[in-house]
Amino acid sequence: MATTESNAGKDIARHLEKGMKRNTYLDLKPLAKARDLWFSAIEESGFALGEEKVALPDSRGRITARIVQANLSSPPFHAAAMDGIAVRAEDTFGASPRRPLDLQIGRQAFWINTGQKLPEGCNAVIMIEHLVASPSGESVRIERAAFPWQHVRKLGEDMVSSEILLAPGTRIGPYEIGALAAARVLAVPVCKKPVVAIIPSGSEIVPLMRASEEALREGRCWPEFNSLIFASLVEEAGAQAVVRDIVPDDPDLLRKAVQGALADGADIVLLNAGSSAGSRDYTAHVIGSLGKVLVHGVAVMPGKPAVLGLVDGHPVLGAPGYPVSATIVVEEFLLPLLARLQHTLPKSRQKVSARLCQALPSRPGMEERIRVKLGDVDGTMMAVPLARGAGTVTSLSRADGMLTIPASCEGLDAGAAVSVALLRPEERIQSALLAIGSHDNTLDLLDSLVRRRTSLGCSLTSVHVGSLGGLRAIEQGQCHLAGSHLLNMEDGVYNRQAIMDNISRPVILMRLVDRVQGFMVRPGNPLNIQGIRDLVREDVTFINRQRGSGTRVLLDCLLGKEGLKPQAIKGYTAEEFTHMNVAAAVLSGRADVGLGVLASARALGLDFIPVGVEEYDLVIPRRFWEDERMQALVATIRSDEFKEQVLAMGGYGVEKTGQIVWEYQGRDK
Amino acid sequence: MATTESNAGKDIARHLEKGMKRNTYLDLKPLAKARDLWFSAIEESGFALGEEKVALPDSRGRITARIVQANLSSPPFHAAAMDGIAVRAEDTFGASPRRPLDLQIGRQAFWINTGQKLPEGCNAVIMIEHLVASPSGESVRIERAAFPWQHVRKLGEDMVSSEILLAPGTRIGPYEIGALAAARVLAVPVCKKPVVAIIPSGSEIVPLMRASEEALREGRCWPEFNSLIFASLVEEAGAQAVVRDIVPDDPDLLRKAVQGALADGADIVLLNAGSSAGSRDYTAHVIGSLGKVLVHGVAVMPGKPAVLGLVDGHPVLGAPGYPVSATIVVEEFLLPLLARLQHTLPKSRQKVSARLCQALPSRPGMEERIRVKLGDVDGTMMAVPLARGAGTVTSLSRADGMLTIPASCEGLDAGAAVSVALLRPEERIQSALLAIGSHDNTLDLLDSLVRRRTSLGCSLTSVHVGSLGGLRAIEQGQCHLAGSHLLNMEDGVYNRQAIMDNISRPVILMRLVDRVQGFMVRPGNPLNIQGIRDLVREDVTFINRQRGSGTRVLLDCLLGKEGLKPQAIKGYTAEEFTHMNVAAAVLSGRADVGLGVLASARALGLDFIPVGVEEYDLVIPRRFWEDERMQALVATIRSDEFKEQVLAMGGYGVEKTGQIVWEYQGRDK
Repeated sequence: MATTESNAGKDIARHLEKGMKRNTYLDLKPLAKARDLWFSAIEESGFALGEEKVALPDSRGRITARIVQANLSSPPFHAAAMDGIAVRAEDTFGASPRRPLDLQIGRQAFWINTGQKLPEGCNAVIMIEHLVASPSGESVRIERAAFPWQHVRKLGEDMVSSEILLAPGTRIGPYEIGALAAARVLAVPVCKKPVVAIIPSGSEIVPLMRASEEALREGRCWPEFNSLIFASLVEEAGAQAVVRDIVPDDPDLLRKAVQGALADGADIVLLNAGSSAGSRDYTAHVIGSLGKVLVHGVAVMPGKPAVLGLVDGHPVLGAPGYPVSATIVVEEFLLPLLARLQHTLPKSRQKVSARLCQALPSRPGMEERIRVKLGDVDGTMMAVPLARGAGTVTSLSRADGMLTIPASCEGLDAGAAVSVALLRPEERIQSALLAIGSHDNTLDLLDSLVRRRTSLGCSLTSVHVGSLGGLRAIEQGQCHLAGSHLLNMEDGVYNRQAIMDNISRPVILMRLVDRVQGFMVRPGNPLNIQGIRDLVREDVTFINRQRGSGTRVLLDCLLGKEGLKPQAIKGYTAEEFTHMNVAAAVLSGRADVGLGVLASARALGLDFIPVGVEEYDLVIPRRFWEDERMQALVATIRSDEFKEQVLAMGGYGVEKTGQIVWEYQGRDK
Repeated sequence: MATTESNAGKDIARHLEKGMKRNTYLDLKPLAKARDLWFSAIEESGFALGEEKVALPDSRGRITARIVQANLSSPPFHAAAMDGIAVRAEDTFGASPRRPLDLQIGRQAFWINTGQKLPEGCNAVIMIEHLVASPSGESVRIERAAFPWQHVRKLGEDMVSSEILLAPGTRIGPYEIGALAAARVLAVPVCKKPVVAIIPSGSEIVPLMRASEEALREGRCWPEFNSLIFASLVEEAGAQAVVRDIVPDDPDLLRKAVQGALADGADIVLLNAGSSAGSRDYTAHVIGSLGKVLVHGVAVMPGKPAVLGLVDGHPVLGAPGYPVSATIVVEEFLLPLLARLQHTLPKSRQKVSARLCQALPSRPGMEERIRVKLGDVDGTMMAVPLARGAGTVTSLSRADGMLTIPASCEGLDAGAAVSVALLRPEERIQSALLAIGSHDNTLDLLDSLVRRRTSLGCSLTSVHVGSLGGLRAIEQGQCHLAGSHLLNMEDGVYNRQAIMDNISRPVILMRLVDRVQGFMVRPGNPLNIQGIRDLVREDVTFINRQRGSGTRVLLDCLLGKEGLKPQAIKGYTAEEFTHMNVAAAVLSGRADVGLGVLASARALGLDFIPVGVEEYDLVIPRRFWEDERMQALVATIRSDEFKEQVLAMGGYGVEKTGQIVWEYQGRDK
């Protein structure tokens, strides 16, 4: 299963020898054009789904294949709409409180319950509340005339037999089931569920559920899980997904796999990965040799290396290996095809107008899909772009919306008005607080707790741009709050100076947590590092954080207190940009020790020796303080539940959690 | 099973004797208050769903029960983001096209494929496209330096092990599955699926799938199908529905049914019907005797007779029998409860602003839910109310949206700005043409065909207010087109005079169909009626349409041509308001013959003798003629497919279908 370096070398060397240049192989088509080309070819080939009849109770979620007409009128007769008596309205004319009228039971008046058929000749119902029992029991007294058809549901009032009830392409939901039932349509003509065969391919991949954690961690194999994403996309679109066995990177085996899937009844085949034009990318070649490739390469990012073709009159497509690209290819090509084959429209996403918080450069000629976080700040929907990498699968799960940069555009400026397709209900976004700034795990914990504590649907959305980026976002009115841990070297005080330097309007500074920083060392602490003085040892190599980072400032403070010189530390000038990179350098043996937070040490199984505490605060503009979402957040921060769970995470102090540590009055500009 | 009149009589007589007044039994609570009362009592009772772990591939659609953290960082190592060579960036510094650099394979450069782990010490990847093979094969040549971390996906770049991935209450969709897979969460902690037992009740109901059509037609039994609607509502909300056997109207049996459902593992019980306060409405009594009733009666229409209670710490609710009321009770109480129990929000509907086309009176103190059709006319979303009856189940399946009249409001004026919750995607509504006017079955056919013929998603929404109402809607700019068949008695010409009388701006008059009117007679035509002259026979009783209806005008024209006097016709003064009511009068024997369209005769199995043809036209404002949706509609009308299917329906002529019969230039006002 595992691929070796020499293997890779062989492939690539062959690639080089042939003088292949990856990108020259892709003939990029604009997205809409690519879709049209494929759809037209599919239509010309005569490919269509069949139809079948399903029993009404099993029809939920299916799509009508043709016009559905009522089999029975509803109601099927003139029916009482109230409990009471059925009468001929004409018999009641003249009745009044002064001149009550007695109607003879069984001759002029007939007891009737809601829903029952009116006796022949009757055309009105008098409600039980308006009757006065007559002493005899053989008649009832009324004090008001009935008008014709009063409290009667007339024959066919809702629908008439043979009337068209549902158009073709209608998704059958609860309301449609009700209408079909009332019209006595007991078997519903629906499109056969399209069957999509998903063929994962790759010589070094193993099914996620069978890959050992150790092998994954060491890079000896890669987990295959795109098929899980595809299957759920396909199933949410109302089709049936069949995940087939993984096929190695071998054109003959891939060809057999496609043919096998079609022979087993697949309507459509989705191949993943190998859709690009690298040395081991055979999808286009395989589809071409079995049938026809209509499109290889689409001008969309992520998602560029897509293959759209036809084999034996069946749609076959190839998606690239990176999960985000692959998802976009499935959403842009396969899901619209599934809808079209069933004469319906794909599920659409609500669009909202938003303001972009950061500039987004983009390559002209390429359409781009950008995942964004959203927050309604002062009535303006703010859109903050997430990581654009095609492998960043959490950029999908964390996103609130997706925005498109058109192919003709060279990018968008910060502050640009954009239209965003929502990935969550608008209500959920409206009720969220948007935090932009430094990231800490306790913010995610806070989100989880505030969701459970409020029935408002209040939640906390957070975007990570570092402490200083957060203060700037506050100043620009882009967010409701910011996490910050900026230590001022001169007075050893956190955040205040940075706020004064960067923010003009009043803010409240609230302690979220005290965060423990410590030395990360290899498991078992082989060099027995105990404190800051060990850094200057001859046998110890340090790995540092970049200048300006909070952790670097903290280190320099600690060194200053101990009277140690940076130059005395081996590796002081080697810089990494994140806690995790420092941890990785220690794990790999490139360094013996680095300074960082407990979570990063734990994530890589390193030992952790606490050496200092930093103040992690929330910066909250005063004008948002009274907002009910903010009040819910503050109440959650101050709750015992939050503090207990923070302590349980390890690496934190909560002594001052929830305290207002400073109120900044702002400055006149 | 069948209920008899005497049965009903007994119930109602008993009711009267006790002096019960139905409405006095309901203690109406405002909707939000009713929900709060119920939810608080459920929370106080300690009722909660359990949680379970499900394998990742089975987790789609489930709701997370707690915080889900990453088990593995993603990527779990520094990984190549491109095919090429892994290098130490520092080794490449200084390379340029003028001074290319040769890197030794296996010492300074390592072949690597996308996704593979970087060899120890490497911190950059150089793409294959930027390599120049050296003659020896033992080294590669580069012409550009690599910067550190170029084309590398760094350890934990997407997520770090132990990081919070999903908050509790998150619905697991395709994106979440991707994130969980990448983080190696192979078993997901989710809420147990709530089990909702649905107990249909009523002495005279039989399961829809087992009721004979004849028995239904004759009113000998009623079909039970609310349980189908409920089950699909519950399942779409992610819960499990269990439909139990029908229980007769008997308090002891109902009690046993509730206890049986709970004993069999139901979390929640839904009783239907019997939730009102009539003589056979036992739900409140049954819940009260087993546990506690918190609410009986809610100030919402439809949906007023709702019962909310608790039995043995389980939520139990009662919904009324009318399907629309019952649906609203389930949507307003049960679905929010299911969401709340899973710490999530119920599915929300997108809201749009619209203008109300008709006035809507409403009872103060009652919140009303009005189903509406929507159309985007000249950039304004128009909302046309549908039938308000609680039994009109097609008012749900036909509706585009739902608007709420608050309890404090006495009604809404025509033209009022309203907020409408969408029942369909906004796109679908944007691409629909709105017709307001006379109804004909061919309009529904046209809708079905235009949907299939265009990939735009174009469709035709129609609302039935009669021909004259349609012309008024055109004049007021409320719709895109109107169906009309208004005959002018004086010149025998259709629609033109009415247009001149009612419309000021230019319109195009297009023939949709010629519609055959004929006599509807009992099957076999026992009185051998052949033509208009038979109406004056002694042994023939006629049933007429109301004055002003197109059919009445046509009859009078036909009589005039034959020189017949209305007074000579027995029943000429007996009027009905719809084709179907005329047909029903004939079927019941109240009359022998009436004039109407073939569809109504067919719906009730009557014979039909054609006697005349009326012109059924579309009135289209000139300014909408060029609209691409209108052009798609016109092309469909003119297609052979449409004409063939119209002819196949019977009762129509298509000779002039699609022809522009008149262009009206409008008038200055």
